[in-house]
Amino acid sequence: MSAETQIREVALRAREASYELALATRGVKDAALHAMADQLLARAPEVLAANAEDVARAEADGAPANIVDRLRLTEERLSGMAQGLRDVAALADPVGEVVRGSTLANGLELRQVRVPFGVVGMIYEARPNVTADAAGICLKSGNAALLRGSSSARSSNAAIAEVLRDAVASGGLPADAVQLVPGDTHDSVKALMRARGLVDVLIPRGGAGLIRSVVEESTVPVIETGVGNVHVYVDRAADLDKALRLVLNSKTQRTSVCNSAESLLVHADVAHEFLPRVIEALQEEDVTIHGDTEFCHFDGVVAATDEDYATEYLALEISAAVVPDLEAAIAHIRRWSSGHTEAIVTEDLAAARRFTAAVDAAAVMVNASTRFTDGGEFGFGAEIGISTQKLHARGPMGLQEMTSTKYVVTGDGQVRE
Amino acid sequence: MSAETQIREVALRAREASYELALATRGVKDAALHAMADQLLARAPEVLAANAEDVARAEADGAPANIVDRLRLTEERLSGMAQGLRDVAALADPVGEVVRGSTLANGLELRQVRVPFGVVGMIYEARPNVTADAAGICLKSGNAALLRGSSSARSSNAAIAEVLRDAVASGGLPADAVQLVPGDTHDSVKALMRARGLVDVLIPRGGAGLIRSVVEESTVPVIETGVGNVHVYVDRAADLDKALRLVLNSKTQRTSVCNSAESLLVHADVAHEFLPRVIEALQEEDVTIHGDTEFCHFDGVVAATDEDYATEYLALEISAAVVPDLEAAIAHIRRWSSGHTEAIVTEDLAAARRFTAAVDAAAVMVNASTRFTDGGEFGFGAEIGISTQKLHARGPMGLQEMTSTKYVVTGDGQVRE
Repeated sequence: MSAETQIREVALRAREASYELALATRGVKDAALHAMADQLLARAPEVLAANAEDVARAEADGAPANIVDRLRLTEERLSGMAQGLRDVAALADPVGEVVRGSTLANGLELRQVRVPFGVVGMIYEARPNVTADAAGICLKSGNAALLRGSSSARSSNAAIAEVLRDAVASGGLPADAVQLVPGDTHDSVKALMRARGLVDVLIPRGGAGLIRSVVEESTVPVIETGVGNVHVYVDRAADLDKALRLVLNSKTQRTSVCNSAESLLVHADVAHEFLPRVIEALQEEDVTIHGDTEFCHFDGVVAATDEDYATEYLALEISAAVVPDLEAAIAHIRRWSSGHTEAIVTEDLAAARRFTAAVDAAAVMVNASTRFTDGGEFGFGAEIGISTQKLHARGPMGLQEMTSTKYVVTGDGQVRE
Repeated sequence: MSAETQIREVALRAREASYELALATRGVKDAALHAMADQLLARAPEVLAANAEDVARAEADGAPANIVDRLRLTEERLSGMAQGLRDVAALADPVGEVVRGSTLANGLELRQVRVPFGVVGMIYEARPNVTADAAGICLKSGNAALLRGSSSARSSNAAIAEVLRDAVASGGLPADAVQLVPGDTHDSVKALMRARGLVDVLIPRGGAGLIRSVVEESTVPVIETGVGNVHVYVDRAADLDKALRLVLNSKTQRTSVCNSAESLLVHADVAHEFLPRVIEALQEEDVTIHGDTEFCHFDGVVAATDEDYATEYLALEISAAVVPDLEAAIAHIRRWSSGHTEAIVTEDLAAARRFTAAVDAAAVMVNASTRFTDGGEFGFGAEIGISTQKLHARGPMGLQEMTSTKYVVTGDGQVRE
């Protein structure tokens, strides 16, 4: 069977399931989510056995230790996945929310109501916990999920999906609400990306390469996630103690995530005082600084190239430059930003207003760590990813962002003259 | 210069203009909109002279009378365009609206604020009035517009754009807020569709072929508009007088538009009474009926094929079928709907609830003409098109739908632990 035919079959089953899911009440969906959590724990041995296959294969293939670690499931990680599903159950149901409404002059009642997308495709890398997270968020938002994890996690994903499907069915919802995309080759990913009309939206989660290829090849509407070339700008009017704390937290609290800082800009008026302090503090945390000529006056700073300013390191590295003024900082950010998160440190209201207005990003921080751009931190309760595009959703995507809307118009025979 | 280079140049100029537009106050934008209206009227002779060239060319090429009519501008149509710009000026500014906000447990203030997309590309056919409409809606929503009309209207569009650019500049905003896409070949359209990163969103307006090609070829995010294979379902519990009025209005009040009805479904229990009445009434309005076997018992009805059920006629034609029950009507609509507008005629609350919940379309009507799916009728004041996709905007798109959002997060030094 060709990859297109396979995708068509699973997508049509997902479509059928989506009709039931769209009409399921919150009670039924929450019961299914708890059943999913219960079953993940009850059937931990089979999931862990499947995971052991993936881990053994990765080790045999010589995968680096951090990759093997991301792949590995434990009782504790399974508990975390189960808790994640229960957390989603505890959230309000976005489906049916009336976004706006009015009564028109002719008496027609207009309501714009949240509805599920229908069929959501997810393409993601490495970590098998995403399989449960994505299935839970899709189910709660009334969407059927077509999941395509990385082939390195295929045994784990298959075991998790089987457990989740059984749990969904035990709750009276169609098992096909959760499906893995069949096939292990790039052909099946490609077929998924071309399944316009069968799949309503595609969400890639992973590295920049994966996301770029989905965005460029897909005819299905895509929500682009995650790449963060994140700047912290230390203004002339910054409180330098705060600035130091914010730069360190933004860069080093966790380096492998999209909301960590990758570039530091410092106003020239405070460079003399701030550079020695920030360079010392970063170097104490083993951060390599790729700096401009001002920064290169200090020991251990290496000269930055344009490539450095364009790079999302996701590691203990940072690019850095001194800028003559706020406008130069804004211009630099406009040139290099990936539109994820940008921060200013300043006590000057006018500078904060100018920066937040002029910088175009999913999140703009004033005197706050860039690490706060996160669905959990924002209070959304669950997050499917962080959108860096401007269409539909921008920034952390919670349950509401996993819905579309429809207009329901009710009358008693109104016609247009 | 290659089409790619040309598009890159205009898009970069649009980007620069968008920075200023995004920060322009409502007062400045409204003044520019009034200046655009004033100048269109003051410079009517040059616009009409340019339009006469397009009309003469179309006539020489043997274009049908209705196409030539759509192309033709008159003093009255120019007044309509000017009034449209003033109407947009009278609407609230969507930019800066706070969509949601909260104070987090750590004291961070979170606000989700509407911001412009940045650079909006429009690809549209025939009618030159779209040039002014689109420019006005983009300007009010803070977006720079890259406009690509049809080559048949090229002289008119060039004249209108020149007038609008002069007016924008006279109001102190950058003239490059409004630009025509240079080049008259398909290469320039193709380059526009591949200008990901330079153009934030692309909105095609026109026939099904145009929209499909943009959706399939574009790497820039697209908002799909307009194809409407619209059904009216007459339920067993319908008031048949209302049903007759609604079918006639939905089909014949204006046939060339996407919200006109293209297909009629009738519950078997009322077919005996309703079919003779609706067939006679439609035939009196010169509507050709493509019906199933039940309908074909009547004189003048021609047999429907699957192709008829799939067709958006945009003409005095309608497909028609008798269905055994509500569920069969829903199944038929799920199979053939383009997701634009679907209507039920019923006095039965349960049937209305089931239909509005189960039918997945941008607008679902209960006892109302399908012709009401329209930004003006919905009270949005202005409309850039009707989205038939589920991502970002669905249904009539007004000023709010021409924006994205950003999160502004303000603190006093908060870091993540």
